[in-house]
Amino acid sequence: MLRSVAGQGEGGPLYEQVAAHVAGLIGKGTLRAGQRVPSVRRLSEQLDVSISTVLEAYRQLEVRGLIEARPQSGYYVRPDYLRRPHSGTTPPEPATRRLPLEPAPVECADRVMRVMLAARQRDLVPLGAAVPAPEFLPTAELGRHLARAARTFAAETTSYDFPPGSLALRQQVALRLIEAGLACGAEDVLITSGSTEAMMLALKAVTRPGDTVAVESPTYYGLLPLLEALGLEAVEVCTNPRTGMCVESLEALLARGPAVKVVVLMPSGHNPLGGIMPDEHKERIADLLGARGIAVIEDDTYGELAFQPRRPRCLKAFDRHGGAILCGSFSKTLAPGYRVGWIVPGKFRPEVQKLKLVLSLATASPTQQAVADYLASGAFERHLRRLRRVYQDQLALLAEGVARHFPEGTRATRPVGGHLLWVELPEGCDALALHDQALAEGVSIAPGPIFSATGRFGNCLRLNGAVLWSPAVDHALAVLGRLIRRQLG
Amino acid sequence: MLRSVAGQGEGGPLYEQVAAHVAGLIGKGTLRAGQRVPSVRRLSEQLDVSISTVLEAYRQLEVRGLIEARPQSGYYVRPDYLRRPHSGTTPPEPATRRLPLEPAPVECADRVMRVMLAARQRDLVPLGAAVPAPEFLPTAELGRHLARAARTFAAETTSYDFPPGSLALRQQVALRLIEAGLACGAEDVLITSGSTEAMMLALKAVTRPGDTVAVESPTYYGLLPLLEALGLEAVEVCTNPRTGMCVESLEALLARGPAVKVVVLMPSGHNPLGGIMPDEHKERIADLLGARGIAVIEDDTYGELAFQPRRPRCLKAFDRHGGAILCGSFSKTLAPGYRVGWIVPGKFRPEVQKLKLVLSLATASPTQQAVADYLASGAFERHLRRLRRVYQDQLALLAEGVARHFPEGTRATRPVGGHLLWVELPEGCDALALHDQALAEGVSIAPGPIFSATGRFGNCLRLNGAVLWSPAVDHALAVLGRLIRRQLG
Repeated sequence: MLRSVAGQGEGGPLYEQVAAHVAGLIGKGTLRAGQRVPSVRRLSEQLDVSISTVLEAYRQLEVRGLIEARPQSGYYVRPDYLRRPHSGTTPPEPATRRLPLEPAPVECADRVMRVMLAARQRDLVPLGAAVPAPEFLPTAELGRHLARAARTFAAETTSYDFPPGSLALRQQVALRLIEAGLACGAEDVLITSGSTEAMMLALKAVTRPGDTVAVESPTYYGLLPLLEALGLEAVEVCTNPRTGMCVESLEALLARGPAVKVVVLMPSGHNPLGGIMPDEHKERIADLLGARGIAVIEDDTYGELAFQPRRPRCLKAFDRHGGAILCGSFSKTLAPGYRVGWIVPGKFRPEVQKLKLVLSLATASPTQQAVADYLASGAFERHLRRLRRVYQDQLALLAEGVARHFPEGTRATRPVGGHLLWVELPEGCDALALHDQALAEGVSIAPGPIFSATGRFGNCLRLNGAVLWSPAVDHALAVLGRLIRRQLG
Repeated sequence: MLRSVAGQGEGGPLYEQVAAHVAGLIGKGTLRAGQRVPSVRRLSEQLDVSISTVLEAYRQLEVRGLIEARPQSGYYVRPDYLRRPHSGTTPPEPATRRLPLEPAPVECADRVMRVMLAARQRDLVPLGAAVPAPEFLPTAELGRHLARAARTFAAETTSYDFPPGSLALRQQVALRLIEAGLACGAEDVLITSGSTEAMMLALKAVTRPGDTVAVESPTYYGLLPLLEALGLEAVEVCTNPRTGMCVESLEALLARGPAVKVVVLMPSGHNPLGGIMPDEHKERIADLLGARGIAVIEDDTYGELAFQPRRPRCLKAFDRHGGAILCGSFSKTLAPGYRVGWIVPGKFRPEVQKLKLVLSLATASPTQQAVADYLASGAFERHLRRLRRVYQDQLALLAEGVARHFPEGTRATRPVGGHLLWVELPEGCDALALHDQALAEGVSIAPGPIFSATGRFGNCLRLNGAVLWSPAVDHALAVLGRLIRRQLG
């Protein structure tokens, strides 16, 4: 029995116990950097577990950066620098600054667009866009569900699935939202083509051109061109890397600033900061806005990816007025290319459903069915548990790499969810210039100014941790470090 | 050999020759209504063709309404009234009226929405929405292509396919557009989530809220709430059932009417009228608008479904100024639920691509790949040839049914493409009321006023011919006839 051998009493799937056993041997130095780990067959015999269990355990250790496969030879412990950082090797955290309460038309779409389109370039180390590498996602398994849907339910999958969309999928989404503290039914959920469409529908439902929208600073860069396309103005609210939008700043804005029509925020796994808003803040904001009849759009794209035992509650769970709209997606957890997202529009449901029908008629049927099928299979929860650990490990490796390669004075967030690292470079650095310079050397980043309607964060950048840590990523950080030092002269 | 038996010298697939042979026997009265047609095995021996060829021929004859299968018994010639009408049994055509040149804000979304949502009701005879019945589409074959894509290219299908979308699909679309007189490359095409999104992107790219859009009258009802959602005004231009938007009326509008920002039309297979604009008109309109720097959005959704040997040229083929935007879709020919459409935005390409990225990020990858794969297989051309004939037959049966069941004074279009029949009831009829009354009796229709920004066509309705003709459809027309007579008192 494994338990007696490995001393792992806490349960969990067998392959995780095997992985923990090997990780423990590496941690204690029994297996050292560069050393070959036991062969799959050998370990299978040692621990009396199946070959496939050991293979899965090794695959997991590989993804976490502890071991690497060498063709024709087996698995080896990676050099120390590729493993989890020790305390003190990550950069200090960035600070938060108060902001003026002035709205401004958003005119950054071209800048954002340039960065987004650059990311399509091939052969990049993709540290820019927040795109999860396919190897982290249950790609083959989902493909099997899609193939099954295509063959078995051809007539359903080729027919329109008019709004609100697949009932089976809406039931699954509603079921998952119980964990987020939301008691809603399938009838409260509407399926969308990803959370981008969900956000677009939410914004269009609650605003008219010329309205002012309060946004986090920094905020998800995809939001800003959306505001521009809808003719909306933005007012930035300072946002803490750990706790999200600053409640006092929001209060000040509502008391003394311009009339705000809606507040957009990501309280549960912030993009780009990686923070999670405490429940008390969520409740205060919900009350604050509800009492004033101001709508709130909550982007929950990273809600399932918090590194904590219990999924964070959504802000909408504290909404007593029905003015909170919750938007989410399976793009960061399952398959970006399936374009399956959802929205719980609260009291704006009729308007949102109408807009969905008018602007896009329906969401693709086969991918809705495949995701519903996959969720019903029960595999999602297992996959998420693993994905969270993987992202946490990748982020730790990334932060350590930043500490190693970037100049003194660099700061970085300590994300508690998602797969994104926000880095503040020393004063004087120009992240937009760095973006172009890095692209020329085959590395993409997301420069700070695209996260702000007013071009703040000139010396900041966001790194995507959902790429498999490797010497190539390490080298990309070294390239960035060199370019940054050159900027500092 | 079949040729010697059936006297069919014009070639075509063998099953079509077999179908023509049997249709000929029915036409000449050799096989009469109610009579059993030769068994599959018998005909296979008679004509020296395979069993599967005869089966396919019988399936085709069934779809065309000439024969019907009776369980455990074989195929029978259908009663005469279910077959192709003879000359003189279809209603006369509706006339066209000139219109005032006044723009008006569009405020019909709620009315359109009510009709669209009603169509989701189960157990309806679906003569309302323009949704093709799955049995007319290559549902199983497409499903196989989708399943193959899901299994073979799981990583590609789960990843984002950022705008402009799948290269393979764009190549196929560009290839097909050669037939429409357009020499464009894959780089000129952008994939969208159906033509609804394509139209939305086109409108957003060329207008600002408050602008005036010239539309056909009647026009596709989905366009009107789209204009409303984008804050646009509409001016209606009278449209001839056979030749499309009236060129003289458009000239008058441009000379004496309000400033028009863009003209939207369906010159190749009009929805709801079923007409095809002559090439000279297309050229005149392209020149007229091009010279004035006015954009034109051409909805080509039915362009592949014209009942003529050669696909109609698109208006964009006559555009010398780059201001024509062509939008199309595979929703009426392959799979509405796949949400695969396309746009050729001409000089507005950068803006359209930006908007696509901002508003929806990407189109679903697996369905793009499945459609591209299906098109590359060469099956589409065969399918289209058959589909056009089927739609033409269904429309003829529908028109004959209208002549049989609707009161004297009813008029109907003679569609030369698509699957829609536009019916003008005697003065005094109220199509909106008829819509509600018919729904209560299990029949959906599309009432005339939703095809007009100003609620014209109060006594008109559109019928969907893409349902398999059957006694149930015949009965639905009888129900409508009874309700109409009741309205006339």
